[in-house]
Amino acid sequence: MKATVYVTIKQNVLDPQGSAVQGALHSMGFDEVGKVRIGKYLELELNTTDRAEAESRLKAMCEKLLANTVVEDYRFELEG
Amino acid sequence: MKATVYVTIKQNVLDPQGSAVQGALHSMGFDEVGKVRIGKYLELELNTTDRAEAESRLKAMCEKLLANTVVEDYRFELEG
Repeated sequence: MKATVYVTIKQNVLDPQGSAVQGALHSMGFDEVGKVRIGKYLELELNTTDRAEAESRLKAMCEKLLANTVVEDYRFELEG
Repeated sequence: MKATVYVTIKQNVLDPQGSAVQGALHSMGFDEVGKVRIGKYLELELNTTDRAEAESRLKAMCEKLLANTVVEDYRFELEG
């Protein structure tokens, strides 16, 4: 089974990396760029066939390691 | 217009960050986790209404700044 996890910074939390990228894009002439937010994108292979089990295990992985839930949100998709 | 950009490491390029996360998950008891690949996820606001123009500009941003096309692939979605 293949899992895709998206970890994003919460809306009300400052994203200095995003601001830096926005500034760089402006300085390169891409003036149409407004707010930029940067997150993480993870692809995991899971050696399991039980979808419900995979979901609850993946939720635990996100809570414990993949996302810092104080300042980050996460969501995931399972396929296969 | 909102753009979502996914930057991933090419399949045949080593991903040490992914390997580290895989090792950490194993050490936490998530033994079902196979290969892990980590990429970037960017959300950009674009102050434009011309979709074709936005696509070509976004492609240029990816090629010039957002992705290192030697070792990374990118894809993007436009909405709104």
